[in-house]
Amino acid sequence: MAEKNNGKVVLAYSGGLDTSVIIPWLKENHGLEVHCVAGDVGQGEGELVGLEEKAAATGAASCKVVDLRRPFIEDCVFPCLRAMAVYEGRYLLGTSMARPILAKAQVDYAHEVGAAYVAHGCTGKGNDQVRFELGYQYLDPDLQVIAPWRTWEITSREDAIDYAEKRGIPIAATKAKIYSRDRNLWHISHEGGALEWPSNAPPADVWMLTVDPADAPDEAEVVTVGYRAGVPVSVNGEALPGDLLVAKLNEIGGRHGVGRVDITENRLVGMKSRGVYETPGGTIILEGLRTLRSVTMERDTFRMAEKLMLDYADIVYTGRWYHPLRRSLDAFFTEATKHVTGEVDVRLFKGSATAQATRTELSLYSEDLATFGKSATFDQADSKGFVRLYGLPGAVAAARSKAAGEDLSA
Amino acid sequence: MAEKNNGKVVLAYSGGLDTSVIIPWLKENHGLEVHCVAGDVGQGEGELVGLEEKAAATGAASCKVVDLRRPFIEDCVFPCLRAMAVYEGRYLLGTSMARPILAKAQVDYAHEVGAAYVAHGCTGKGNDQVRFELGYQYLDPDLQVIAPWRTWEITSREDAIDYAEKRGIPIAATKAKIYSRDRNLWHISHEGGALEWPSNAPPADVWMLTVDPADAPDEAEVVTVGYRAGVPVSVNGEALPGDLLVAKLNEIGGRHGVGRVDITENRLVGMKSRGVYETPGGTIILEGLRTLRSVTMERDTFRMAEKLMLDYADIVYTGRWYHPLRRSLDAFFTEATKHVTGEVDVRLFKGSATAQATRTELSLYSEDLATFGKSATFDQADSKGFVRLYGLPGAVAAARSKAAGEDLSA
Amino acid sequence: MAEKNNGKVVLAYSGGLDTSVIIPWLKENHGLEVHCVAGDVGQGEGELVGLEEKAAATGAASCKVVDLRRPFIEDCVFPCLRAMAVYEGRYLLGTSMARPILAKAQVDYAHEVGAAYVAHGCTGKGNDQVRFELGYQYLDPDLQVIAPWRTWEITSREDAIDYAEKRGIPIAATKAKIYSRDRNLWHISHEGGALEWPSNAPPADVWMLTVDPADAPDEAEVVTVGYRAGVPVSVNGEALPGDLLVAKLNEIGGRHGVGRVDITENRLVGMKSRGVYETPGGTIILEGLRTLRSVTMERDTFRMAEKLMLDYADIVYTGRWYHPLRRSLDAFFTEATKHVTGEVDVRLFKGSATAQATRTELSLYSEDLATFGKSATFDQADSKGFVRLYGLPGAVAAARSKAAGEDLSA
Amino acid sequence: MAEKNNGKVVLAYSGGLDTSVIIPWLKENHGLEVHCVAGDVGQGEGELVGLEEKAAATGAASCKVVDLRRPFIEDCVFPCLRAMAVYEGRYLLGTSMARPILAKAQVDYAHEVGAAYVAHGCTGKGNDQVRFELGYQYLDPDLQVIAPWRTWEITSREDAIDYAEKRGIPIAATKAKIYSRDRNLWHISHEGGALEWPSNAPPADVWMLTVDPADAPDEAEVVTVGYRAGVPVSVNGEALPGDLLVAKLNEIGGRHGVGRVDITENRLVGMKSRGVYETPGGTIILEGLRTLRSVTMERDTFRMAEKLMLDYADIVYTGRWYHPLRRSLDAFFTEATKHVTGEVDVRLFKGSATAQATRTELSLYSEDLATFGKSATFDQADSKGFVRLYGLPGAVAAARSKAAGEDLSA
Repeated sequence: MAEKNNGKVVLAYSGGLDTSVIIPWLKENHGLEVHCVAGDVGQGEGELVGLEEKAAATGAASCKVVDLRRPFIEDCVFPCLRAMAVYEGRYLLGTSMARPILAKAQVDYAHEVGAAYVAHGCTGKGNDQVRFELGYQYLDPDLQVIAPWRTWEITSREDAIDYAEKRGIPIAATKAKIYSRDRNLWHISHEGGALEWPSNAPPADVWMLTVDPADAPDEAEVVTVGYRAGVPVSVNGEALPGDLLVAKLNEIGGRHGVGRVDITENRLVGMKSRGVYETPGGTIILEGLRTLRSVTMERDTFRMAEKLMLDYADIVYTGRWYHPLRRSLDAFFTEATKHVTGEVDVRLFKGSATAQATRTELSLYSEDLATFGKSATFDQADSKGFVRLYGLPGAVAAARSKAAGEDLSA
Repeated sequence: MAEKNNGKVVLAYSGGLDTSVIIPWLKENHGLEVHCVAGDVGQGEGELVGLEEKAAATGAASCKVVDLRRPFIEDCVFPCLRAMAVYEGRYLLGTSMARPILAKAQVDYAHEVGAAYVAHGCTGKGNDQVRFELGYQYLDPDLQVIAPWRTWEITSREDAIDYAEKRGIPIAATKAKIYSRDRNLWHISHEGGALEWPSNAPPADVWMLTVDPADAPDEAEVVTVGYRAGVPVSVNGEALPGDLLVAKLNEIGGRHGVGRVDITENRLVGMKSRGVYETPGGTIILEGLRTLRSVTMERDTFRMAEKLMLDYADIVYTGRWYHPLRRSLDAFFTEATKHVTGEVDVRLFKGSATAQATRTELSLYSEDLATFGKSATFDQADSKGFVRLYGLPGAVAAARSKAAGEDLSA
Repeated sequence: MAEKNNGKVVLAYSGGLDTSVIIPWLKENHGLEVHCVAGDVGQGEGELVGLEEKAAATGAASCKVVDLRRPFIEDCVFPCLRAMAVYEGRYLLGTSMARPILAKAQVDYAHEVGAAYVAHGCTGKGNDQVRFELGYQYLDPDLQVIAPWRTWEITSREDAIDYAEKRGIPIAATKAKIYSRDRNLWHISHEGGALEWPSNAPPADVWMLTVDPADAPDEAEVVTVGYRAGVPVSVNGEALPGDLLVAKLNEIGGRHGVGRVDITENRLVGMKSRGVYETPGGTIILEGLRTLRSVTMERDTFRMAEKLMLDYADIVYTGRWYHPLRRSLDAFFTEATKHVTGEVDVRLFKGSATAQATRTELSLYSEDLATFGKSATFDQADSKGFVRLYGLPGAVAAARSKAAGEDLSA
Repeated sequence: MAEKNNGKVVLAYSGGLDTSVIIPWLKENHGLEVHCVAGDVGQGEGELVGLEEKAAATGAASCKVVDLRRPFIEDCVFPCLRAMAVYEGRYLLGTSMARPILAKAQVDYAHEVGAAYVAHGCTGKGNDQVRFELGYQYLDPDLQVIAPWRTWEITSREDAIDYAEKRGIPIAATKAKIYSRDRNLWHISHEGGALEWPSNAPPADVWMLTVDPADAPDEAEVVTVGYRAGVPVSVNGEALPGDLLVAKLNEIGGRHGVGRVDITENRLVGMKSRGVYETPGGTIILEGLRTLRSVTMERDTFRMAEKLMLDYADIVYTGRWYHPLRRSLDAFFTEATKHVTGEVDVRLFKGSATAQATRTELSLYSEDLATFGKSATFDQADSKGFVRLYGLPGAVAAARSKAAGEDLSA
């Protein structure tokens, strides 16, 4: 770790307009030497090409690009899969899971160059500021945070372009962006534009990773996903590391229009927002996983996992990735899913992913127990006693209410 | 209420083989006068036609058919909708919600004819025995229960046919049924046959209410569902009572292949079972409702409703319909959903139902708050303080761990 | 409601140093006409005497004292009792429950005098700022909030005295206060001084409402508390309104040293704090209530009430009194406790309150069911089936693990 | 493991009347060779002396006494302490925690002698039958269970004495026992007699491990308990293994009348029962632990631990010790309590145990953060933004309700 230098800042840099304008601003307003870091979490081809040059041209003292694709999937996404974490019934947490690992790369680079400051390009209305800053707070509470978009005079895209042009900063896109997007290996999110009114259906131009289900093939495709201890390990029989596995399923799912989500969600900072997401591979993985879990997890554990999933999703969504509670819940889910191993066939057709067949050596399903005829290990006479005692508390309450003159059928 | 008569029994009667054979058996083995009751919860055209004659021909002393379609939907299904109750992530509880109202009709008829006994045709391995008997226990704990399928010597369909033929009981179906089915206005369930192995995909011949998504129209259809206080009240602008509303949406959803579910579920009596369900209208209603709730329910209430839904679904699935806890949770959900009023457009296409536009006077979504520019009511500078205090417990824990020499990035 | 006047502020006023110095400060720094309001929630004899004169002498334009004792107990404390809300296992929420009703009195007075501003004397480190301001936000979101202690240059008691003396403001106490206290009819809280270190035992001089248990009478006293639908209604057979009932039990409990609590608690704003509380009457009421509930509440409802209590306590502690979730949970608890009616004898001795006998017409306890001999309504043979099916999911999981070669006894 | 022998049974044997009469009964009615096993979990001096001879005199083929005191405390009680498991707010689970380890000793002995049967002396109305049998089911699902008290003709103590005398079985106690008791190193439970009516206060003769608080010393005693990672490790500075630590605290607590509990609880088999418990050492350990946790556990983790405690206690109470969910929750609690290390002074006086001072290197309490003055690391101005955003969802809901014409102050 370099000696801490109060004249240096490390900026979470994307190369886009939003973070590019921060470079001169930090120099002009804080007199800092600006070092950039960009984590590659699968933003897509071309996004990170030439980033070092671009940063230099914009006035940065250095720029480091870190390949985080595999650790992003295996260390961040996979724990969420073990928990089957989905936020508010729909959102597969693509952006939420990426921010903490990006914050870590940034803190690591701050330590490397000896910066006393970190900066990000998130606004004051979103969740990402929280996810970045809680990461900083946890990983190095002594770092000072600068969040220009919360405080400066630049309040629109036009202001930013104007600011950049005056300083000769290269701006790729001249056309106004309609949507605000965040893409990584797991998903892409879209906000803004016509999406800002929940009474609008998502326009066709918003989607990027998935074809319109109407344009998907007329023939269904069945993909087989293999799992071990609650996380995916293979596709159609081929073992793959996490990043390649997700990329492959994205491609397959995308061509069938799988994984589109449209949600009005509750942001941590108190307001509701409309978001549209595409997570083709993730949707396939979760569909298979849900089914495999139903076959391999014991009932009470399954029920508790359903409840704790809600908490886990909330923790990840709200940026508490490094907090102790996530670690404790991870311990729970690791133990709870240790038998979730097997293969599931998932059928893809016109926007749907449907698990249709499950194969596992660790099944808790017993044909002998489940079928309605005689069985070796289940004595139907046992049920009489079970039903009577199971209902006893309610029956006693009914007798009490009856004695008190209440109408039981109301 | 008639004087209780220890020589009378009221049987929950369907007219099918399973309950028909119980009539002579109760007479022969218990010496009871058998009165039948059949509740119409929308089993379908023809199912209840001529039931009185059939019962008489089978030896019953009486048979009463009660139309429960509207109360089934409005008094049983609608409270579950207010809770958005779904069991184990998939099952819309169609059979679970019907059993308690059938048990009530049976207890009412037992009181009418003065019977001291009630009987049902459920086996000892399923959930329905529990749902019926907990209803009896609650509504009249003095009634004695007879459950022949748990105890008698008849253990297969062949045994039952043999038993019926020896007594000259009319049996409609000569062909063996492949699947065990339960149908009402809300859904149809299928069990047995090839479904008994989770490694089998559901065969094409199992489905009854929905077309194969591949055969659904190539043009999407948009249906508008109106809601008031958390329950549906209209379809495409036409106000409808519950039973007609569900029937209409079943028809619309069915022709688009909407509402198929395939699940390995945990039965109350301890084993897992594979079930396949069709709930076309219910799936559309829930899709719209989920979206309308996300726009109209306050965040903390929404989050708690997500958690309590799991408990509510469990209570309904396990037959505790009349128990005090369901009533207390209903009080919660009634208050929590009182602003869930508005209209949602749901798009139906090749097996999918997707909410795409929401209109409500009671929205909590504020464009002004959600968009990323300046707003009159949101000061982005507030976020700095929010983030710092929100993360404080984790930051203090990190400082403690750091002081204790732990590796924070692990 | 008067026309809103941007030159007026209503201050939540106590007459103490902390709020007195705010009066001149608001005039000097904001140029506002200061109107005071003080809600009587049972701060104690003398606390509110001469408050109007004091406020006038300090420069206030008006001062209104509102008697809130009965609504405080019956409308704020009683709902919490129905939920048996206790924060972090110990704190009976005395201060938390009072703030919302004080905020409401303040908003009402702001409407009466037409003030556009409200001000309070809470610091930026405590919970009370949240409780006041969430009340304002909810009851009139247009009111502007001024919280001088969060921002001004006065940062110690000495600064405040200095500030007051320079302006000739009358200050009663010349002696430095050791502890920061908040008292109402339900409780008194103590913070600060030697309590700031959790490694210190609470000094003897901190306690005000309760005698040292060592000095309590050597003879125990038994007090009988009557309840109806989950809230207390009588003491030793005498029906009493809420405020008088609590006052009476405070007196009885206090002389036996009952109701002392010492806790390190998690504040909403992120840090831990040490607090010491005295709630003599409340402790007696809860002890009896817990016991009466165990006798009258059905098992599943009791269990859910245990869980939701934690959420309810959190909501009240964090100032979300007027939020929708509290209302929805109140609906739950009102239904869940409707049979919690009866009398409990509570024995007071040397600091302890112990319920020892319960009488109720609505008991769910059945001697016949509970005792180990024969009973008319419980067939012990039922237990065999119950146990077998209850354990079945675990047994199947064990069989699976055994087949997989795991060590079952590990 | 010996070859399984269908002529052998292993009985969980105590030497008391209830299990002694089972020996001849098993021989006479099942023709089995009876092998006894008694686990020493601290039943008390003398209880297990001469047990082998007694069993032989009663007709047993063998009798094995196993010392389980240390594993009982360290492997069963300590995980429950990590979870701070208390059932229905009061019961410290003393009997519940012992049954699974006794079942395991019995299964082990069944394997040793090659028995195909296991038998116990629990009735059909209690929880213990479930706890024993779920242990058997899990540890060896092939063992056949015999539970004579659920089925035989002996239904009272008199019947049993009569049965024993006819067979010349030695019976120590000639006097009728008033209470049904279960004692181990952790606690003693009392049921029956005058306790069967919740309207009776517990009679003075019921208590065995604790003096009447009125007879406790007039001088308080302070005991210091040391903890590491959520479990106790020392008393007054002396490191002790679990069994000796508990024994020591039992002795100390008992002489101060600490640890008496009187509860009407919900049994698993559906009815309520009145129980009286003495857990002097356990009460001291939990009091200190609760306080140490409040100082060392991060807020969100603390809150989740409060909720999951309720589930953990339920699992242990209902005999699901070996089930997968307990293991998963243990993983959670082990991680969640890893910093709960330190020392607490607990003051014992006239029946009360009160933590009064905590010392730990891993404190999360910060005087700088908690006190109301300035601090280096807390900017009070942050609170303004925090409060505004924290309350935002409620404020938006209020604005919506106001627009809809609702009365906000209702």
